[in-house]
Amino acid sequence: MTSSAVALVISGPSGVGKGTLVNMLRREFPSLEFSVSYTTRPPRKGEVDGEHYRFVSREEFLRLKEEDFFAEWAEVHSNYYGTPRDEIERKLSEGIDVVFDIDVQGARQLRKNLKDATFVFIMPPSLEELRNRLRGRSTESEELIEMRLKNAEEEMSLADEFDYIVVNDNLEEAYEILRCIFISQHAKPRK
Amino acid sequence: MTSSAVALVISGPSGVGKGTLVNMLRREFPSLEFSVSYTTRPPRKGEVDGEHYRFVSREEFLRLKEEDFFAEWAEVHSNYYGTPRDEIERKLSEGIDVVFDIDVQGARQLRKNLKDATFVFIMPPSLEELRNRLRGRSTESEELIEMRLKNAEEEMSLADEFDYIVVNDNLEEAYEILRCIFISQHAKPRK
Repeated sequence: MTSSAVALVISGPSGVGKGTLVNMLRREFPSLEFSVSYTTRPPRKGEVDGEHYRFVSREEFLRLKEEDFFAEWAEVHSNYYGTPRDEIERKLSEGIDVVFDIDVQGARQLRKNLKDATFVFIMPPSLEELRNRLRGRSTESEELIEMRLKNAEEEMSLADEFDYIVVNDNLEEAYEILRCIFISQHAKPRK
Repeated sequence: MTSSAVALVISGPSGVGKGTLVNMLRREFPSLEFSVSYTTRPPRKGEVDGEHYRFVSREEFLRLKEEDFFAEWAEVHSNYYGTPRDEIERKLSEGIDVVFDIDVQGARQLRKNLKDATFVFIMPPSLEELRNRLRGRSTESEELIEMRLKNAEEEMSLADEFDYIVVNDNLEEAYEILRCIFISQHAKPRK
């Protein structure tokens, strides 16, 4: 027998293009559901509550965390992020494929709770290129960008813990590899 | 760092379409080299010595086997088949990707000698369909076909030992999965 539902965890430093790649994947595979994370950070332009994130207050987040609501949670750049546990488990048990877009800390934590998931690290071609992309996004101060870069360097040293590493130099090429990783997971024998 | 050379082992019952799938892969990826097996079986129509197989006598095969020349060898349907060890190791160490088309016994044995290889089982949609294909090939007696089917049934029970299982119902769909398995192997972290 080949495997049932696939849980695909996309992680990597801020600004590396995780969100873009996840969107491309969802466009090609409409039945793939997105794990909507909870966060305390304010919405960016164009972000819709319940679609990109569930935007909650710090108090609400901490209350949910106490209730063991999250399969993983992390504090990243002074904001909280978390993945709801029950919702994901329900989807997977119903045979629905789920894709996650989460930070590196969260992905490492999720590995403990979601052993059969596939973990993909999106790698920038270089720190210099990552700096350019974060500046290009231009929603953040130079100070915040330097903080993200410092974190990125640490995160990149953990890439080898992941099942796959996809270098996002050319977006089309990175996507081709990512879609192949997703497709190939369905051919794994059921454990 | 992501991985270097990929060793992709394609296996499965006789008549399942391994050869066709391997040829499609080599056409799309010309730098992928084919591991030419040694065999004592007579060439089929169109088969070229040194390209599809190295056709050797029974005496020659047994002599090589004694010299530990083979990374795996197997007797299948009264013929010997074997994979030359040194040649494969040299190619992989030079960073050349290699694809293998080998029987299920041989693949299981190769697993011991080539731990980092990726093992793919090509599965027929059903035994009935496999019988039709073997008859369609029409190079073999009905008796030989029944022997192959009996072996196929045993082999299919071992599919879960493989890294991936690709059902060859529709050739184009099976190929899309196989090429994705190959592409995704290049994104695995180096061990």
